[in-house]
Amino acid sequence: MGQKIAIDILIDKIKQFDNPTVVGLDPKINYVPSFLLEEAYKDHGYTKKAVAVAFYEFNKGLIDAICDIVPAVKPQIAMYEQYGAPGIKAYIKTIKHAKKRGMVVIGDVKRGDIATTAEAYSDGHIGQVMIGNNSEKVFDSDFITVNPYLGYDSIEPYIGNCEKYSKGLFVLVKTSNPNSGEIQDIIAQDGEKVYEKVGKLVEKWGEGLVGEHGFSSIGAVVGATHPEQGANLRKMLPKTFFLVPGYGAQGATVSDLKGCFNEGGVGAIVNSSRGIIAAFKSEKYKADFSELGYAQAARHAAIDMREDLKARF
Amino acid sequence: MGQKIAIDILIDKIKQFDNPTVVGLDPKINYVPSFLLEEAYKDHGYTKKAVAVAFYEFNKGLIDAICDIVPAVKPQIAMYEQYGAPGIKAYIKTIKHAKKRGMVVIGDVKRGDIATTAEAYSDGHIGQVMIGNNSEKVFDSDFITVNPYLGYDSIEPYIGNCEKYSKGLFVLVKTSNPNSGEIQDIIAQDGEKVYEKVGKLVEKWGEGLVGEHGFSSIGAVVGATHPEQGANLRKMLPKTFFLVPGYGAQGATVSDLKGCFNEGGVGAIVNSSRGIIAAFKSEKYKADFSELGYAQAARHAAIDMREDLKARF
Repeated sequence: MGQKIAIDILIDKIKQFDNPTVVGLDPKINYVPSFLLEEAYKDHGYTKKAVAVAFYEFNKGLIDAICDIVPAVKPQIAMYEQYGAPGIKAYIKTIKHAKKRGMVVIGDVKRGDIATTAEAYSDGHIGQVMIGNNSEKVFDSDFITVNPYLGYDSIEPYIGNCEKYSKGLFVLVKTSNPNSGEIQDIIAQDGEKVYEKVGKLVEKWGEGLVGEHGFSSIGAVVGATHPEQGANLRKMLPKTFFLVPGYGAQGATVSDLKGCFNEGGVGAIVNSSRGIIAAFKSEKYKADFSELGYAQAARHAAIDMREDLKARF
Repeated sequence: MGQKIAIDILIDKIKQFDNPTVVGLDPKINYVPSFLLEEAYKDHGYTKKAVAVAFYEFNKGLIDAICDIVPAVKPQIAMYEQYGAPGIKAYIKTIKHAKKRGMVVIGDVKRGDIATTAEAYSDGHIGQVMIGNNSEKVFDSDFITVNPYLGYDSIEPYIGNCEKYSKGLFVLVKTSNPNSGEIQDIIAQDGEKVYEKVGKLVEKWGEGLVGEHGFSSIGAVVGATHPEQGANLRKMLPKTFFLVPGYGAQGATVSDLKGCFNEGGVGAIVNSSRGIIAAFKSEKYKADFSELGYAQAARHAAIDMREDLKARF
């Protein structure tokens, strides 16, 4: 028997915790409690390294506080990358720590490029690089997000590593942002929209990676801010698992994203970032938690989200 | 008077050298001369840092050998990113060195994400990040490439920094890879193809950034491997400057990309990566240059490309 495929590991974990939530680890300086920032500035000055250290400490506290109730985290690489090499180091350390705590990690990188370049991204993020005769895992995410605009040969190098290393993808199909329709909703001559065509391609690309729950390791990003489109895609793409952004801070409620799940309440994982990681700053939780209690505030918000998502049935 | 806008700086440099070429700095271990690799392995072991050091030394030699005849370089971040934080450091140092030598730098990052995330990429790659009360430039490319699949609100944060810091973009319109048509060539109900609609959006997004040569700082990536489409776009988008990949190793010749230029021979910059940076390994140049002469081989190949591109008129 080979290793368990990525989507089965994720779905098992979701079932174990009865919680289809992924927490977006998208730190910004103004989300990080000042005691963590001050310590980092004291040790490293006002430098990129200080911010990176504070981000990692912030994430570590969050991960430790939620790892027994939330199946997965989704670090957004842009938040780290903007601080250069030290930022990338904090991103990689965050992935490592989350995996050590048993969480599934979705690297939100949204890369998309021609095949030779995609190979480099793929080897770095979900595969291995060769240095002399040594092979080394660099980012080692369980899943990453990718952009489909360049077509199949830009996706193929990732699928190869998904098979080889038991990894998965979430391909952008219908995103949650206001202008997502500009290209994604263009209606083709046959009446189908671009995002529907992309969804069908994703379903096809995943055919070789379907696991025991009937879903493939090649998933789709489907924004919760477009409820009818989510429900439409759920019917069209029975084997494609959805990563659903847009809940909470971006405005979508559980009734908006219900259609992304099948009748058994399976088929999607819902992301919340700010609503969880910056809960201690929110109107709802700030009276009960101080800055020092930021991780417990996040745990509380994650429990509330889990309970809220039960209304998906 | 404000500062000169990015596209004018690029076009002036192209005219000065009579050479619409950008050299893609996309290092791979097997393009790097063994004397550079061996030195790096000796100093740093078989590590990511060793590869990053070798890449930077390789690039420095290339940049120094071509900076008086080639206007721009285009480092592909994936090649560096796959080696983690040390790789990113080599990418940033490469950008710094190229700028020090007066070259225009196009960071080939192809990022694309929702607005809050795009802000982080934009501040990191073409803007500044704030740390305490200090602002810091991190990557500081002159241009970057971006992906349009998410629509205007995913592009807007870059345009803000283009205006503020005199930077530019190249938005993917029609890429050079074999399956680029899968999504980009979908025909809409009005008979227009997706890439044509994207091209028109790019022309519109650049309206506020048109310079003295009549082109805007918001350019388009248009692959040379689709000659009729390039010529079609040139007519449709008079103010959009093209970044043209696909020449040389990817198979396109000067007659394929002629249509990307206007009658004056302006309007595009053509990329070559492997054909220049690994010239010393190619059938054409390897008899005349040893590994030690890799940079001179690249210079020779760049001169040959400049002469070849004169046939665009």
